[in-house]
Amino acid sequence: MIMAKMTVSGVEDEIDYQKLMREFGVEPIDTVAGKVPNPSMMFRRGIIFAHRDLGAILESAKNKKPFAVLTGFNPSGELHLGNLFFLKQALFFQKLGGTFYLPISNDETYVFKKSDDLDKTTDFAYKEVIPSIIAVGFEPEKTKIFVSTRTPKAYELAVKLSRRATFSTIKAIFGFTNDTNVGQIFYTVMQSAHILFPQLREYGGPKPTVVPVGLDQDPYLRLVRDVAEKEGFVKPSSTYHKFMPGLQGGKMSGSKPETCIYLNDEPAVARKKIMRAFSGGGASLEEHRAKGGDTEKDVAFQYLKFMFEEDDAKLGEIEKAFRSGAMTSGEIKKLLTDRVERFLREHQQRKEKARKLIKKFLIQ
Amino acid sequence: MIMAKMTVSGVEDEIDYQKLMREFGVEPIDTVAGKVPNPSMMFRRGIIFAHRDLGAILESAKNKKPFAVLTGFNPSGELHLGNLFFLKQALFFQKLGGTFYLPISNDETYVFKKSDDLDKTTDFAYKEVIPSIIAVGFEPEKTKIFVSTRTPKAYELAVKLSRRATFSTIKAIFGFTNDTNVGQIFYTVMQSAHILFPQLREYGGPKPTVVPVGLDQDPYLRLVRDVAEKEGFVKPSSTYHKFMPGLQGGKMSGSKPETCIYLNDEPAVARKKIMRAFSGGGASLEEHRAKGGDTEKDVAFQYLKFMFEEDDAKLGEIEKAFRSGAMTSGEIKKLLTDRVERFLREHQQRKEKARKLIKKFLIQ
Repeated sequence: MIMAKMTVSGVEDEIDYQKLMREFGVEPIDTVAGKVPNPSMMFRRGIIFAHRDLGAILESAKNKKPFAVLTGFNPSGELHLGNLFFLKQALFFQKLGGTFYLPISNDETYVFKKSDDLDKTTDFAYKEVIPSIIAVGFEPEKTKIFVSTRTPKAYELAVKLSRRATFSTIKAIFGFTNDTNVGQIFYTVMQSAHILFPQLREYGGPKPTVVPVGLDQDPYLRLVRDVAEKEGFVKPSSTYHKFMPGLQGGKMSGSKPETCIYLNDEPAVARKKIMRAFSGGGASLEEHRAKGGDTEKDVAFQYLKFMFEEDDAKLGEIEKAFRSGAMTSGEIKKLLTDRVERFLREHQQRKEKARKLIKKFLIQ
Repeated sequence: MIMAKMTVSGVEDEIDYQKLMREFGVEPIDTVAGKVPNPSMMFRRGIIFAHRDLGAILESAKNKKPFAVLTGFNPSGELHLGNLFFLKQALFFQKLGGTFYLPISNDETYVFKKSDDLDKTTDFAYKEVIPSIIAVGFEPEKTKIFVSTRTPKAYELAVKLSRRATFSTIKAIFGFTNDTNVGQIFYTVMQSAHILFPQLREYGGPKPTVVPVGLDQDPYLRLVRDVAEKEGFVKPSSTYHKFMPGLQGGKMSGSKPETCIYLNDEPAVARKKIMRAFSGGGASLEEHRAKGGDTEKDVAFQYLKFMFEEDDAKLGEIEKAFRSGAMTSGEIKKLLTDRVERFLREHQQRKEKARKLIKKFLIQ
């Protein structure tokens, strides 16, 4: 469960939205949408559909008070579009005035057995992950990336929080058993420490912090909020987004190359992946022309909507044309391919340049 | 249980020595005693009475190969004579050629609730504990003191070890329940990380390491040995000592001032404590002269034996005189008081000088 932090998955179907909204103070995004300045396409298109305490963030932004945006990365492999989706949300809040904190949880990768060599994972984080994150376009003055096992303040904060959670508490939330290893048990509070890290005295003390997540992760956020209050921190805010589908229409998973486009994929490889992606078009061209396609199911259209078509009017035209059958799934794939290929080429160039800039973005 | 690391207690009565020796490879010290060069009084007097794999240490010392000696300190309060007893054992092995590693487990203090303020405990460790440890007489070139939450390599190593222990394993050894907090659960592997720390690549890689302990702590050592083997480290060696009694004859406890002499006690305070210590003499002077005293029960005599009378012949004379009734308990107390007062004065002077030397002894 905890591994899902920066992966994308289609679990929202299983979630009782009404219950979450009723019991846990999660609200539809409409309650604050009007107050979001220069809303990104994720806000404009309902991709971010709910939030908790986002008002505190918007208030800080408006009054030019400090706030943070935080998302973690589990460095079990190359970054892919699902990860980029989180980073773009972080970038939006950074542009709004927030400082971006990014814990790289190499400890998580290891204790959850996504890697059998912690040292290699750590090297990989510094050599590949961090340059790729920087290449997304963050400002060095407002970005603090830290590697969990190399940042003593993270462990120190986890120790402080660790008295607040018993095995019973953790067991219930994370579905652990007596056979769960001690590393996984402790990582639950380390994750809380990552989220509260921006509020350490060294970084200016308590402040609103927004964490973009999927609704399935809300139990962990509630745990952090509970602990935060007891330890004198501001309870973190959160935004909830829909999941970007995998290439085959199911879940996107970094460990299944057929489901995702990695940010280091050769443009030609990405093109092939997109061409084979799940299509929402008709079974035949005739049928498509007659009945049109389903934009909700068409992966290429969804990728345009999530990330690759900034212009709402254009996206609306594409949607209309695809639904009417005037535009085919192949044509949408072609459009997406051009965008993705250009993005990958540019991203990879920026990543090469970023290799020399790491220190400017790193804590310690 | 885990808190007992550097405390002294009278639990050896409850231990099945034969079982330990038979099942777990603990041997009477006699098997190697003849090979210990310049044996300290603790070896000469049977205070260290058993060991496991001490041969590996003696072999390294003989061949001038690297080895380590390790003892931790839980900075829940001022150092007392019980702690000094561990440090003197470490000093002996340092003089034999070993490098002394001393983890200060401020995390342990906090998660086991011996302190409610981790930051204060950490400050106290740097300001009071470390200077007092240095004042015992360690060589800076062969001493590596580290504070657990301030040393990222310690957490990183604990993460590596944490996959090797499940909650079931830990639960049985440490007597945990579902209500145990996550910090205590993780500290079990952090303690293992402290013990294997001298074997990190950064410190020269795998090497024999001796840990002086009481027999009650053997289950934790067996856990470390088990994990060590799986992770490619040399299994730690250990020596087992008798417990130095508390001033009242029972356990010595740093949290009970009436049971121990602190290394920062005013000499006059220490004198009063010794005068009130449990005596092994007769009920009256007449009875004592007639029947003599019990050196096993006389706390002042035990302190001379454990630490304050270096000369075996002199100690023998005192023993004989007390047992025959020629020497009184009061006279032994007087003898001890003189030694302790002088020791405290000198230690406290050395501690003041040590305050400026901390960096030479510290990792990070």
